[in-house]
Amino acid sequence: MKAVRLHEYHRTPVVEEVPEPKITGPLDVIVRVGGAGLCRTDLHIVEGQWEAKTGVALPYIQGHENAGWVHEIGGAVTNVAVGDPVILHPLVTCGLCAACRRGDDVHCESSAFPGIDADGGFAELVRTNARAVVKLDAGLAPADVAALADAGLTAYHAAKKAAGRLAPGDKAVVIGAGGLGHIGVQALRALSPAELIVVDRSPEALKLAETLGAHRTVVADGTHVERVRELTGEQGAEVVVDFVGEGGALEDGVAMLRRAGDYHVVGYGGVLSVPTIDIISAEINFVGNLVGSYTELAELMALAARGQVTLHTVGYPLDAFTQALDDLDHGRVRGRAVLVP
Amino acid sequence: MKAVRLHEYHRTPVVEEVPEPKITGPLDVIVRVGGAGLCRTDLHIVEGQWEAKTGVALPYIQGHENAGWVHEIGGAVTNVAVGDPVILHPLVTCGLCAACRRGDDVHCESSAFPGIDADGGFAELVRTNARAVVKLDAGLAPADVAALADAGLTAYHAAKKAAGRLAPGDKAVVIGAGGLGHIGVQALRALSPAELIVVDRSPEALKLAETLGAHRTVVADGTHVERVRELTGEQGAEVVVDFVGEGGALEDGVAMLRRAGDYHVVGYGGVLSVPTIDIISAEINFVGNLVGSYTELAELMALAARGQVTLHTVGYPLDAFTQALDDLDHGRVRGRAVLVP
Amino acid sequence: MKAVRLHEYHRTPVVEEVPEPKITGPLDVIVRVGGAGLCRTDLHIVEGQWEAKTGVALPYIQGHENAGWVHEIGGAVTNVAVGDPVILHPLVTCGLCAACRRGDDVHCESSAFPGIDADGGFAELVRTNARAVVKLDAGLAPADVAALADAGLTAYHAAKKAAGRLAPGDKAVVIGAGGLGHIGVQALRALSPAELIVVDRSPEALKLAETLGAHRTVVADGTHVERVRELTGEQGAEVVVDFVGEGGALEDGVAMLRRAGDYHVVGYGGVLSVPTIDIISAEINFVGNLVGSYTELAELMALAARGQVTLHTVGYPLDAFTQALDDLDHGRVRGRAVLVP
Amino acid sequence: MKAVRLHEYHRTPVVEEVPEPKITGPLDVIVRVGGAGLCRTDLHIVEGQWEAKTGVALPYIQGHENAGWVHEIGGAVTNVAVGDPVILHPLVTCGLCAACRRGDDVHCESSAFPGIDADGGFAELVRTNARAVVKLDAGLAPADVAALADAGLTAYHAAKKAAGRLAPGDKAVVIGAGGLGHIGVQALRALSPAELIVVDRSPEALKLAETLGAHRTVVADGTHVERVRELTGEQGAEVVVDFVGEGGALEDGVAMLRRAGDYHVVGYGGVLSVPTIDIISAEINFVGNLVGSYTELAELMALAARGQVTLHTVGYPLDAFTQALDDLDHGRVRGRAVLVP
Repeated sequence: MKAVRLHEYHRTPVVEEVPEPKITGPLDVIVRVGGAGLCRTDLHIVEGQWEAKTGVALPYIQGHENAGWVHEIGGAVTNVAVGDPVILHPLVTCGLCAACRRGDDVHCESSAFPGIDADGGFAELVRTNARAVVKLDAGLAPADVAALADAGLTAYHAAKKAAGRLAPGDKAVVIGAGGLGHIGVQALRALSPAELIVVDRSPEALKLAETLGAHRTVVADGTHVERVRELTGEQGAEVVVDFVGEGGALEDGVAMLRRAGDYHVVGYGGVLSVPTIDIISAEINFVGNLVGSYTELAELMALAARGQVTLHTVGYPLDAFTQALDDLDHGRVRGRAVLVP
Repeated sequence: MKAVRLHEYHRTPVVEEVPEPKITGPLDVIVRVGGAGLCRTDLHIVEGQWEAKTGVALPYIQGHENAGWVHEIGGAVTNVAVGDPVILHPLVTCGLCAACRRGDDVHCESSAFPGIDADGGFAELVRTNARAVVKLDAGLAPADVAALADAGLTAYHAAKKAAGRLAPGDKAVVIGAGGLGHIGVQALRALSPAELIVVDRSPEALKLAETLGAHRTVVADGTHVERVRELTGEQGAEVVVDFVGEGGALEDGVAMLRRAGDYHVVGYGGVLSVPTIDIISAEINFVGNLVGSYTELAELMALAARGQVTLHTVGYPLDAFTQALDDLDHGRVRGRAVLVP
Repeated sequence: MKAVRLHEYHRTPVVEEVPEPKITGPLDVIVRVGGAGLCRTDLHIVEGQWEAKTGVALPYIQGHENAGWVHEIGGAVTNVAVGDPVILHPLVTCGLCAACRRGDDVHCESSAFPGIDADGGFAELVRTNARAVVKLDAGLAPADVAALADAGLTAYHAAKKAAGRLAPGDKAVVIGAGGLGHIGVQALRALSPAELIVVDRSPEALKLAETLGAHRTVVADGTHVERVRELTGEQGAEVVVDFVGEGGALEDGVAMLRRAGDYHVVGYGGVLSVPTIDIISAEINFVGNLVGSYTELAELMALAARGQVTLHTVGYPLDAFTQALDDLDHGRVRGRAVLVP
Repeated sequence: MKAVRLHEYHRTPVVEEVPEPKITGPLDVIVRVGGAGLCRTDLHIVEGQWEAKTGVALPYIQGHENAGWVHEIGGAVTNVAVGDPVILHPLVTCGLCAACRRGDDVHCESSAFPGIDADGGFAELVRTNARAVVKLDAGLAPADVAALADAGLTAYHAAKKAAGRLAPGDKAVVIGAGGLGHIGVQALRALSPAELIVVDRSPEALKLAETLGAHRTVVADGTHVERVRELTGEQGAEVVVDFVGEGGALEDGVAMLRRAGDYHVVGYGGVLSVPTIDIISAEINFVGNLVGSYTELAELMALAARGQVTLHTVGYPLDAFTQALDDLDHGRVRGRAVLVP
């Protein structure tokens, strides 16, 4: 089959013929790729930033946001049949550890991550397992939703946890209306009645956020903390969801938080640094957020099927991979780039 | 192997040689039985009360509360090894349906129930799957905990749901201190700070309840509703856990419930009949309770390992099955009867 | 001041001059009525159905859904000032009992209920206390929201409890799209991502429900249970909110419920009658619902201020009370009748 | 009456005659002090550390952990009568703001804090309000429980929040077994089934912790992080409750936390500093904890009444205040110092 493989760090991956993946375990599922999201993580992998972390043997196939159609199934697979359209949860989990048994897939004690530490979806076929495949509603095309499999699922997960405490009249600040943030805005609109205040440096991103459901937008121009405090009656917001997590976002975000508020950390890169006296005297919380569970991916697809979460995507054939990577690197992709083999 | 098989309804099951179970699926686990609880359901099965419900083909092996040691495993089993001591969750679940993926095993869309609708544990070996086996702490003997696998797990499940809303100063009434109830009392003591008031017709059962943690006991002699109201400052209890569910228990239990209280239905047989005006004007809730999840069985074993839940058992060899059944039928078993092959 | 007073049961209340209410306690608040909802309960009061229950001394002033402007305040009132537009929580609560201290106003141990057991809002002025007044957003006119104070708050309360367990992809059935139900539909849309299926006998009520956010509507024509099961993939709905509570609604509603589902009882009149075996084998719950708390009334007003909950009302001057009562009695009021003194 | 008053920062407060407090508002309550806890905060106040924060006018009476008997009540007080034994919630709250209405007293928008920013309990009489007084069970003497009013309530509050997610088999680490910590250990034992691992520098404090319910104790001698990881199967604990919050406690505590674990910040002084990548990749949470609510103080008293929370106290007459302060300053108080006027 045709695939894009990384042969060496710091060198562009190559489009080439490779052997097809085979069913090796009873719960294996091989999926014909209908779309594979390309994201900044893929750039970082090529740059070698993940080398030490994953230790994956080269050459290997990237692509960790995948959707397509079931191509072949192992003998114990009962939840999908050949031909079913599916989106793939990013993790291939064991199903037997304590975390899996609670439905907390993400903390599985022995999971694999195709596209990161195993062959992924920049190919005609990708191998995953029965525990990763969510059947798609007839109205959803794999290429249109593929990019929701990881980034989108992370944003949804944070939004769902945040929504749990939001009541009408509450305010929620979303910091960053980019790739994750604009899914977060849609998910918060679907899941909570709170007033959404979106903060971003880019007036264009804010314009998009407005069309997706933001009630208020604030340009991050240095006066944004005061502006948010003004919009929250000088009290701060019950919830801040921070999709940036670096630069001044953390300090600003904490300053926007109301007493007893929840600060959701989603973006990363910086260091959270807060005097404990401030944590206890305002009784605020910091909540970590990783990617969502299988159940949450099914929920996100239910929202997508009803049009409550949409994504702007730009398709590239596998052969145009270099072009896609280059467009992404130079900020020429509006929305998400998706490889369509 | 030796097993007890039911050949015909209304006839005593027979101890005989039968073929050993075989591994047929990759997640199958065969367990050498260390103990198999015998309960009233087994009497009812013999009497034919479950015939229409399960449609199980005769002859078959009963025994749905099982523990022992792993004897053989299928190719995809990773969570136990041959020789491990284990207790068996009563259901063999699929692991792939929406309920299983949430950790809600009990509502699995395609489960089997060994001992009820498939061969069970009144035998030297029993077949289950990897999703049903909970490894036992070194300090726990299979024969001692087997009877917790179903009845005990049901009581724990109800106690856990009930405990979620109980704070210090609250009162919880337990109706019925028999097989399930006396596990429920221990679980409530371990999980909640509420004052426990136990109601039963039998002064002996109440005496046992006291040694297991009941703060107050009330003989169900006709004055028990008034007595409970007295013990709750005429307000009723925040929670009633009804392990009886028939006779006058329901009417009495509802009369013991405080405004905004939760009534947990565990025992069954009767009909819950309440005017809707009473439900809304006191804003009370009725909560159904089935057996617990795999995770809850692991939790119950953690309590057992610390000695916070104990069970009085009487062992019988397989050959003494008829004796055991007869003792059970005539109320001669103190605690739980357990077949020890 | 002018007021409508009931002098004798079974006789139409009389519009007459009465003494103005006086501040007697430090937390008292007197409100100039801007709107007082008239509902079927008012008809039942006149018919004497509440006589034994409340024992209120005649003559007295009905009107238990009130909004207006603060007219005078007691010495310890700090949360509102004279002139503030307010809606009144139906109960005048003590603020010091255990329930009040938890924010659970509705189970206050010593509350009064103006319009039911004390003088209410069918008058130019009504007395309540500081704990009952919710300040209105500038965009909300008292006469437009008054009818949300009791019926609307009950529907919101049930919707909020129901929404707590609803995720995308879940289904919620609303039985009854009348006075409470159509507020319930709007609240469920605002608070949950579930698919809403509304069942009612009246095609007109269903048409209204659609414009308010129902995803599906089903005429209660005898085939409605099958129709709902069809719409829920033969599984039933995760939640049923029953605003009828009598006739066949209960039996039908239970038949529409999914395993592990929640049945919210809001409407009343009938008897809930379910075998305990059905409660435990499907592990279903029955949840009572009374009127909401002060905090929930504030939340409902936040939704109303954003136009997410609207109400069709027909205004009548105090002098037209007899006409209003007569219109209500003969089903000539579309939406809610509101007295506007 | 006799009282201890601070006339000047950095000077020992003086025992002297002062005017008795008077009822000035309808909800005022004057309490005859039966015991007033003395804590390190009192030393810090004398040292001027709170001067800028509170701006309290000197001279004033310290003492913020008070219990006694109701001496006089305002006209609107209905929940206590003269002579009732009571413990005082540390805050005098308004009862009318949004936080108070939710039962979240601690975030009241306009509270006073007797002993900190108003006259407190180092006196024969202290003024509070009806919303602060919790009636004591007949078996509890004010002097014995006074010191639970603030420090104890903070520890209970954190323990209760932590217990909400703890199941049998989970581990909870308590860092610091001093004043707050040893209450925290007792509260965790009462509220949760988790295995408690207590870490402290002092072997004596650990010995006390064992008698109070700690399952395991670990001396903080530099190897404690490894020791805790060992005791948690190298996974870390589901919950860490940090009563220290400075020195190396934070770094150590985070290293003891399991994936998806909760870190409860109670002690303060240091700076929480964690890379956001660590927060999201392990998906951990940091939870701020301030003092508990009125309802929680009532719950803590219910535990105390049953002997599940006990406190070692050393009584001093008011005249011995200088001695008490000096003993506290030099670490000569075993347990808590309590002034008994």
